[in-house]
Amino acid sequence: MTTTTSSIIDGNAFDEADPASLAELSPSDRDLVLRRRRALGPSYRLFYERPVHLVRGHGSYVYGADGQEFLDAYNNVASIGHSHPAVVEAVHRQMAQLNTHSRYLQRGVIDYSEKLLTTFPRGLDHVMFTNSGSEANDLALRVAEAATGGRGVVVTSEAYHGTSAAVTAISPSIGRFALGPHVRTVPAPDTFRLAPPEGIGAWFGARVAEAFTDLRRNGYAPSALVLDSILSSDGVVTDTSVLAPAYAAARAAGAVVIADEVQPGFGRTGSAFWGYARHSVTPDIVTLGKPMGNGVPVAAMIASAAVLEQFGTTVPYFNTFGGSTVPVAAANAVLDTILNNRLADHAERLGAQLLDDLRTLQTRHPHIGDVRGAGLFFGIEIVAEPGGSQPAPARARAIVNALREDGVLVSVAGPHSTTVKARPLLSWGQPEADRFITALDDALARTAAR
Amino acid sequence: MTTTTSSIIDGNAFDEADPASLAELSPSDRDLVLRRRRALGPSYRLFYERPVHLVRGHGSYVYGADGQEFLDAYNNVASIGHSHPAVVEAVHRQMAQLNTHSRYLQRGVIDYSEKLLTTFPRGLDHVMFTNSGSEANDLALRVAEAATGGRGVVVTSEAYHGTSAAVTAISPSIGRFALGPHVRTVPAPDTFRLAPPEGIGAWFGARVAEAFTDLRRNGYAPSALVLDSILSSDGVVTDTSVLAPAYAAARAAGAVVIADEVQPGFGRTGSAFWGYARHSVTPDIVTLGKPMGNGVPVAAMIASAAVLEQFGTTVPYFNTFGGSTVPVAAANAVLDTILNNRLADHAERLGAQLLDDLRTLQTRHPHIGDVRGAGLFFGIEIVAEPGGSQPAPARARAIVNALREDGVLVSVAGPHSTTVKARPLLSWGQPEADRFITALDDALARTAAR
Repeated sequence: MTTTTSSIIDGNAFDEADPASLAELSPSDRDLVLRRRRALGPSYRLFYERPVHLVRGHGSYVYGADGQEFLDAYNNVASIGHSHPAVVEAVHRQMAQLNTHSRYLQRGVIDYSEKLLTTFPRGLDHVMFTNSGSEANDLALRVAEAATGGRGVVVTSEAYHGTSAAVTAISPSIGRFALGPHVRTVPAPDTFRLAPPEGIGAWFGARVAEAFTDLRRNGYAPSALVLDSILSSDGVVTDTSVLAPAYAAARAAGAVVIADEVQPGFGRTGSAFWGYARHSVTPDIVTLGKPMGNGVPVAAMIASAAVLEQFGTTVPYFNTFGGSTVPVAAANAVLDTILNNRLADHAERLGAQLLDDLRTLQTRHPHIGDVRGAGLFFGIEIVAEPGGSQPAPARARAIVNALREDGVLVSVAGPHSTTVKARPLLSWGQPEADRFITALDDALARTAAR
Repeated sequence: MTTTTSSIIDGNAFDEADPASLAELSPSDRDLVLRRRRALGPSYRLFYERPVHLVRGHGSYVYGADGQEFLDAYNNVASIGHSHPAVVEAVHRQMAQLNTHSRYLQRGVIDYSEKLLTTFPRGLDHVMFTNSGSEANDLALRVAEAATGGRGVVVTSEAYHGTSAAVTAISPSIGRFALGPHVRTVPAPDTFRLAPPEGIGAWFGARVAEAFTDLRRNGYAPSALVLDSILSSDGVVTDTSVLAPAYAAARAAGAVVIADEVQPGFGRTGSAFWGYARHSVTPDIVTLGKPMGNGVPVAAMIASAAVLEQFGTTVPYFNTFGGSTVPVAAANAVLDTILNNRLADHAERLGAQLLDDLRTLQTRHPHIGDVRGAGLFFGIEIVAEPGGSQPAPARARAIVNALREDGVLVSVAGPHSTTVKARPLLSWGQPEADRFITALDDALARTAAR
C-alpha cells in the first residue's frame, strides 16, 4: 500500500495491494476492484478492510450488492436522506425543462440566492456559485488576497480544505510536503489532550496571532485565517470558546476570516444552522459544499460586499456549471426541506440525546477517551489505556470495521486517525439512533480484547 | 461598466451599470437584474445588450420568458440537445436509486470509465473524475508537475483554461495581471493574420521552444504545454498542421503535453471525436468538461499510466462529487447518445456543409474576413474593411446582438473580440442549419451600413 501521512485518505482505506485483502472479496467484487484499479489508476481509495459495494440508497439507509443493509452514520452529502423525494422530483422537473448557465437571466438562481442569504447575518450579502467546496475555498482565497493585498494563510495542523492546487497548499492533512511557503499551521484547540481546557480559546487565539506574525516576518502579509467551524479533520472540536479569540487575532493581524462550512453547515451542527454561528462570531467569507445539493454537485461562497469588492470589480470570474439551473434546483429543494421541516432543530435535539447516550457508553467502555458532539456531528476518541489519552489507531480502525460488518457506516479522522467520526443523517429518527448506539456498544465490546 | 481586458467575459456583456441599458428591459426583467446584482454581487455578467431571460429548452432551441424562441448556436454544455430525454431519464433513474461517492465500490463508474477510455488511443489509460474543466486542468497541472519535477507552463496568448487559482495563472485571457511567473505565452498560430500560413506549424513550434527556453533561463524547469485543441479563446484555429510541431517542441524541452478538450471534445469537432486527434497527435494528459454530462456537473482528466505514476502514488487525492453515481450516470447517457447515434460523424458532415455555406456568405459579405470551422465549431472573423484584416469589435458585437434579436444565440471570442463564435448543437438538422445561415445573412446585411 502506498504510504502517505494522510488520515483523511488512508485512515480507513482498503489495502488493494494486499493479496490477502483481495482474497476476502467475492469473485465479482474482486473483479470490479481490479477493473477499477486499471481504469481509475493509483489515486483512488476504497473505504474499509472489506469494501462496501453499494447499489441502492433510501432515507437513512444504503444497500449492498449482496443485499446487506447499512445504516448511514457517516455521509454528509446525502444529508437529508438518500434519494430524497423532494430533491429527486425537483431535479427531474428542472432537467426536463432547462439547464443552462448564469449568463442568461434566470429566476431560480436569484430566488434561491436570496433565500440562502436569509440564513446569514447582515453583512454577508453576496453569494457566488461553484461546483465543489474545493472550488469555493479556492475562490475564497483569491477574494481574500484581493481584499487584503496579502497572501499569508493560517490553518490548523490537520486541516483539509479541498483538492485544487491552491487549497491543497493550505491542507496539511494531505501531507506537510503539500503546504505552501505562505502557509502556517496552528495546533487545533484539542480540548481532550491540551490542558487547561478552560483557557483553550485564548491559547488558540495566541497561536493564530503568532502564526501571522511569523508569516509577516517572512515576507507574507496576512491574507486569511481559514477554519472549518467544527475542525472535522483535526478530530472534531465542538467547544464554542475557541473561534472568537482566533477570529480576533486574525483581524488584528489584518487578515480576513474564512469559515469553511463544507462539513458543519446546513443545520448539521444544530439550530445555529452554520457552524460558526454556534460560536457567536461572524466570518468575512463562508464556504459551502457537500450537503448543499444532496449529491448534485453544487457549492458556494458567501462574502461581505466590502471583502468581495476588489475581486469582483477587477477579476473576471465565470463558472460554467456554477449557479446553473439544475444544481440550483437541487440546492433549493434541499434548503426548503431543511427549513420547512426544521431539520436543524431536529439535529440539535437528536444530537443532544445521542451525545448523552455516547457519554453513557463511555462510562462502560474505557477505550472511549472522549466524546464530542454538536448537533449530528460526533467525534469519539479511542485511546489505548483506560483513563489515558494515548492514541489507539488500530483499535479505532477495528471499531470502524466492526461497525461496517454489523451494517453501520462511520469512519475515522484526527491527527492520529483515532477519532471515530460519525455524522448521522438529518433523516434519522429514534430507531436509527437506537440502532447506532446498540451497534457501537457491540463493536466496542467485540474489540475490547484486542 | 467594469473595465477588464477579457474578451471571454466582456466581449458580449450586458452593461448593467448603464441606466439606458436597464431602461430597455421589461419592468420584470429589470427587477430581476437588480435583485440578481444585489444577491450575486459584482462578478456576474449577463450576455447581450438586451439579456436573454430563459425559462425552457428543448432540443436545439431555448425559449424566453416572453415566449421568444432561440436557435441555440452557441452552448457547448447541452451539446446533444437541451433537456435530452436520454439524460433526463438516466439522471432521474439514478437519483431515485443511489448517489454516492467513489470510496464505495460501484459498478457504474467502472463501466463508464472503460467505455470512455475506448475513445482514446492506447497509452491514455486512466481516468480521474472532477466536477469541472477547471478542476480537471488544475489536477492536470499538478500531475504534470509531479511527473516532470518542473513548474514552467506554456500557453497561447489568449488562452482560457478555467477559474481556479492555478488555472487562472495560466489563463492570460483573464488579464495579464493574473499570469504566474512560471508561465509564458506564445501567440496563437493565427492562419488569417500571420503569413505565410503554409509554414505556420513550424513557426508555432519554434515559439513554443523559445518559451520553454526562456522559462528554463529564469529558473522554471519545463512542466507542461497546455493547449485547447481548437484554440477557442484565441479565436478558433482549425488548421491541423499546428499541434504536432508544438507537441514536439514541448517534449524536446522535457515538458508533458496537456490537451484541453473541454471545448473541442466529445465529437464537437467531427469524426476524430477529440480535437487533438484531428491533428494526428497524442497528448500525455487530456482534460474534459462542458458537454460531458449535458449540464450535470461532471468532468475528467485522462492520463497515461507513466505520467500519472508519481502523483498517483505520492499525493492523496479525493474528489467528493467527482465520479459519484449521478454525474457518472449523466455522462454515460451522453456518451451512449453520441456513440450510438454517430453524432461525431454527423457533426463532421453537417459542419462541412455549414462551412461551405459560410464561405458562400463570405463572398457576398465583405466584412467577413475569414471563416474557420471543424465539425460544428466555427470562428467567423469580422473585419473593418473589405479585403482587409483590421479587427472590427463593434461590428462583431452588432452582428451577435442582431442575431440575438432575430432569435439565434452566438457570442464572440478572440484577441480582439471579433471572432463570431458559433457552436451549433449536435442535435441540429437541416432546418436549423438553414435558419442559422439565413439569420446570419440578414444580420450581416442589417449591420453592413454601420
